Amino acid sequence: MSIRIGLIGAGAMGVHHGETLAFELGCEVAAVADIDLTRAAALADRIGTEATDDPISVITDADVDAVVIASADSTHEPYALACLELGKPVLCEKPLAPQASAAGRILAAEQEMGRRLIQVGFMRRYDADYRRMKAALEAGNLGSPLLMHCVHRNPSAGADFHSAWMITSSVSHEIDILRWLTGTEIVEATAVHGRSVLEDIHDPQLILLRTSDGLVADVEFFARAHYGYEVRAELVLERGTVSMGMPSGLQVRTDNQLVTPVTPGFVERFAPAYRAQLRDWLVAVRSGRQDGPSAWDGYATAVVADACIASQSSGGPVPVDLPTRPALYH
Amino acid sequence: MSIRIGLIGAGAMGVHHGETLAFELGCEVAAVADIDLTRAAALADRIGTEATDDPISVITDADVDAVVIASADSTHEPYALACLELGKPVLCEKPLAPQASAAGRILAAEQEMGRRLIQVGFMRRYDADYRRMKAALEAGNLGSPLLMHCVHRNPSAGADFHSAWMITSSVSHEIDILRWLTGTEIVEATAVHGRSVLEDIHDPQLILLRTSDGLVADVEFFARAHYGYEVRAELVLERGTVSMGMPSGLQVRTDNQLVTPVTPGFVERFAPAYRAQLRDWLVAVRSGRQDGPSAWDGYATAVVADACIASQSSGGPVPVDLPTRPALYH
Amino acid sequence: MSIRIGLIGAGAMGVHHGETLAFELGCEVAAVADIDLTRAAALADRIGTEATDDPISVITDADVDAVVIASADSTHEPYALACLELGKPVLCEKPLAPQASAAGRILAAEQEMGRRLIQVGFMRRYDADYRRMKAALEAGNLGSPLLMHCVHRNPSAGADFHSAWMITSSVSHEIDILRWLTGTEIVEATAVHGRSVLEDIHDPQLILLRTSDGLVADVEFFARAHYGYEVRAELVLERGTVSMGMPSGLQVRTDNQLVTPVTPGFVERFAPAYRAQLRDWLVAVRSGRQDGPSAWDGYATAVVADACIASQSSGGPVPVDLPTRPALYH
Amino acid sequence: MSIRIGLIGAGAMGVHHGETLAFELGCEVAAVADIDLTRAAALADRIGTEATDDPISVITDADVDAVVIASADSTHEPYALACLELGKPVLCEKPLAPQASAAGRILAAEQEMGRRLIQVGFMRRYDADYRRMKAALEAGNLGSPLLMHCVHRNPSAGADFHSAWMITSSVSHEIDILRWLTGTEIVEATAVHGRSVLEDIHDPQLILLRTSDGLVADVEFFARAHYGYEVRAELVLERGTVSMGMPSGLQVRTDNQLVTPVTPGFVERFAPAYRAQLRDWLVAVRSGRQDGPSAWDGYATAVVADACIASQSSGGPVPVDLPTRPALYH
Ligand SMILES: [Mg+2]
Ligand SMILES: [Mg+2]
Ligand SMILES: [Mg+2]
Ligand SMILES: [Mg+2]
Repeated sequence: MSIRIGLIGAGAMGVHHGETLAFELGCEVAAVADIDLTRAAALADRIGTEATDDPISVITDADVDAVVIASADSTHEPYALACLELGKPVLCEKPLAPQASAAGRILAAEQEMGRRLIQVGFMRRYDADYRRMKAALEAGNLGSPLLMHCVHRNPSAGADFHSAWMITSSVSHEIDILRWLTGTEIVEATAVHGRSVLEDIHDPQLILLRTSDGLVADVEFFARAHYGYEVRAELVLERGTVSMGMPSGLQVRTDNQLVTPVTPGFVERFAPAYRAQLRDWLVAVRSGRQDGPSAWDGYATAVVADACIASQSSGGPVPVDLPTRPALYH
Repeated sequence: MSIRIGLIGAGAMGVHHGETLAFELGCEVAAVADIDLTRAAALADRIGTEATDDPISVITDADVDAVVIASADSTHEPYALACLELGKPVLCEKPLAPQASAAGRILAAEQEMGRRLIQVGFMRRYDADYRRMKAALEAGNLGSPLLMHCVHRNPSAGADFHSAWMITSSVSHEIDILRWLTGTEIVEATAVHGRSVLEDIHDPQLILLRTSDGLVADVEFFARAHYGYEVRAELVLERGTVSMGMPSGLQVRTDNQLVTPVTPGFVERFAPAYRAQLRDWLVAVRSGRQDGPSAWDGYATAVVADACIASQSSGGPVPVDLPTRPALYH
Repeated sequence: MSIRIGLIGAGAMGVHHGETLAFELGCEVAAVADIDLTRAAALADRIGTEATDDPISVITDADVDAVVIASADSTHEPYALACLELGKPVLCEKPLAPQASAAGRILAAEQEMGRRLIQVGFMRRYDADYRRMKAALEAGNLGSPLLMHCVHRNPSAGADFHSAWMITSSVSHEIDILRWLTGTEIVEATAVHGRSVLEDIHDPQLILLRTSDGLVADVEFFARAHYGYEVRAELVLERGTVSMGMPSGLQVRTDNQLVTPVTPGFVERFAPAYRAQLRDWLVAVRSGRQDGPSAWDGYATAVVADACIASQSSGGPVPVDLPTRPALYH
Repeated sequence: MSIRIGLIGAGAMGVHHGETLAFELGCEVAAVADIDLTRAAALADRIGTEATDDPISVITDADVDAVVIASADSTHEPYALACLELGKPVLCEKPLAPQASAAGRILAAEQEMGRRLIQVGFMRRYDADYRRMKAALEAGNLGSPLLMHCVHRNPSAGADFHSAWMITSSVSHEIDILRWLTGTEIVEATAVHGRSVLEDIHDPQLILLRTSDGLVADVEFFARAHYGYEVRAELVLERGTVSMGMPSGLQVRTDNQLVTPVTPGFVERFAPAYRAQLRDWLVAVRSGRQDGPSAWDGYATAVVADACIASQSSGGPVPVDLPTRPALYH
């Protein structure tokens, strides 16, 4: 069964979701809506679908089976409620809403429906290293979690990205991860402000969160960190720590050792390359223009392999005799 | 336009290609062939297609637009030739053929066709770090390449994975990468044997390759390295080196510094998580069973965000008041 | 001019200082005092000096030019005051005193003297990576410092290492480093407690420190971290961050890069090995028993080098013909 | 017993040895000899001893108990023989001699003496990570060694540092380490040359060494690597590998993990800082000018610690009230 997706929002996240659905997942996007029709049309054109400036028309479209909401945070509520009314599944970008009151109305509507239709875009739960961190925590051998240190930095942000927005739009990721990792709720929050790169916005911020069983997490969120994007976390447990977001991937410190996983096999190591190979090859097949590794590459490699094997017997260097590359492969 | 793929081979690589096509790329696999009908049927069943033990029937099937060959190395030649005869595009697992003579016959047939139909499965060219290595080489600021050190280790291998097969099946990756990176051909090969973990097979092997402009590469291939899978490479240039396959990703050594890239933004960092989120959500929509981050997660996060924002004003800790989790979200 | 040191305290730190003075720095220790005469005698015996259970007698001894105080924290005050009275230079283990009031009395006495005689054992200022961090900060290209994250973990601690002691004995290192790095004073301190590994002691603790120009530092001190000893710090500046204590040494994040220094030459890389070589050789000369790399090692290496050079001409493998190792070198 | 050292050679290595003996190890250097009297005098002046241009006079000086030879490689033989004749212990820089024949004459003379007096400056055996590598090999749990990959790079070298000299002066380190690590002798050597940064000198070189039990080592030596100095090695064993020289220190790959050691305690972590602290303090005591962490630093830290402890009780921020810094501490 093929699912036709309605996409609300053609900003940065809408474009990313739309292109991923169309080009990476072979999925049909039935329509794109954005209050800015020009950018809706640009995306629709690129992924081969229709554009509109009326999001509600997309939601009510009988050809739309499910909806991705990636419009401005303040518009999530009416669109989510409209989807709920029609019983259509929703993937809604985080935050569900910028205020708890609005989020509460969505929650109430879904409960009235009696079944879950809304997924919130807390995509970090799908990150391999956060999953490994959760697995390391749940394995139990490191004991109970005591503290968590989080760092979340963006290279830059617009002037409208103010102190409160930094919480709802960005720190919300760490809030969700802390709840998801520990399986507990947060019972206290403190915002600490020190030196800031701006006069009227607190940036960076240091947020302290306390969970129902007493774990304290400190979160540095820095929206204008200048040097790049970086997300890191270290969970401190009774008998060791687990870190993610380091250049070397997951790190477990325990028993006088810092341990980083080694991939068990080539699939784990090269799965993204295999997928990219197939995707590019499919594109080439569609277009009729092959540009991947050619039969000539296969042949040249086989000639060198023959020489290696000859050297296995002779023990010395074996010259490789390759004919001139045929014109077809230039 | 949708492309229907015929898949030859339902061994480890066939399964991986078939599942990636069906589940990751939303692509239609028209048929799966394997001389072992049982395993062909198992894969076909999983990805929703037909199975056969006659690969040629798949190739000649008018419903098959393009073919993935992932059968035993020695069978690549007849299947590739059959595809060429019908003008069907092929993605053929490496090696194109285990001997240069067989590879040469495929090459000759394709040239007779006069157009390129065959892509060889040198998927490392699609790996992000190999691509970054090539970009660092081509940037030119490090000068010309002088040496290359390669390490290629598998955790284990069957007793039939003998000294020559280790070359054609595995070292062929490094042979291709060396040609691709440098844009030159290899003119000499030497196989060096030292201590081995087996009596009758040389394992590990040390292979020396020399390119037409004098660069020497040493390749350790170790099929039974026991500890895990690992592929590494260091390119030594006149003014620095570039390494890939390290736990910390690409490393450039130059000007008294070891430099590792920092991702510029959240898309580069979390693209795989975004894709996984959409894919799992699509599966959930199809099945009608939502299990991702729920409206409750969105609501709870918004309540905590509210408290953080209140603390921005008050400067002190703010308690978080969350109602009991509704039954729908248990 | 040779300096004779009086050492007060023969506990862990006293032993370390005494052995370093005697064995690493060729320095004369005139006497060792400890209220436990047995352990004073054990150390004195090992480093070839006299032992006493009367610290004041060591301080007043005319043969003692300078004093190292490494006794219990609460005894620093009387010993430091006795040294000041006699005008003898002191290296006093941190903390100068466990209460500000006691430290203030020492400070007042030194000011009355009118010259500086006391150095406090904040030895982290001598650590290569803290110095590199300070240099990176002062270079100025990363802008002003905004935040600092510190981690300080010990594997274990006795039951008497209570919440306050954790501050005076251990967090005092971070307090000093923050003052030293930034050249500012601290104006506010907050102790945050969450889950603890003990019932009656807060462990780990999270300490927030604010400097006079608004920089906020968070310090995790965990006295019973179980897995090992670790000290880390990350300074967050306007245009990048500087980290120390990572397995890879100093890390600078700036301009989309994570940069680690490469040593410029063999002296920087191997200075500790050169020093250890000389020290062990001096010990061997004293004892008359040579056990380092021998003339045989020099000869065998020269024979292999000859073969390498012969291979430079011949291009092929050259066998190495080494005579039997003489009995003298067994 | 104090040992008086005669130092032959006041070039780079002579200076380093002389300063380390005098300033780091508190050792008396009785005289410095160099055929260039000016540089001998410069060093002698700095370390407070006499200079001469007659090395033999230093060796025969009755006040000289032991000799460090750090003169030109070709002069090691006569000086070493002169020391042997007088029964004086020698630390001779590597190589013992640049030709096996000369090294053999020294070896013969020492055997005639009947006791070991000569140590060769293979100082890598004193490097902490090479020692850890040897310990990891000897622990046995990784099985027998099969291959070794070595990288040895200098940033630059003079025009006289020719192909053969690169072996005797530099690759000799790897030759020694391979013999020392494995406890076997080398039975075959091959020099492989590829692209070079110079026309008349092979640089980089790739040297293959085979030990008596079949282990093959490849050594890249690159004298003009431009980017910095770097020494790395990876030992490949049956069940894992051990690497040293990485930015993260020793790495053990085994059982699907990459393991880096964590220091067990503060002494292991900060021993160099403790030593540097004592050394600088001794210098300050001699000069009468204290410039390390002062009583003011101790006091200010104690005041902040008091505030932290007060916050442990109050739970909230505690202001720190520090008096003005007294003039003595400006
Ligand atoms: Mg958004
Ligand atoms: Mg295959
Ligand atoms: Mg103490
Ligand atoms: Mg030398």
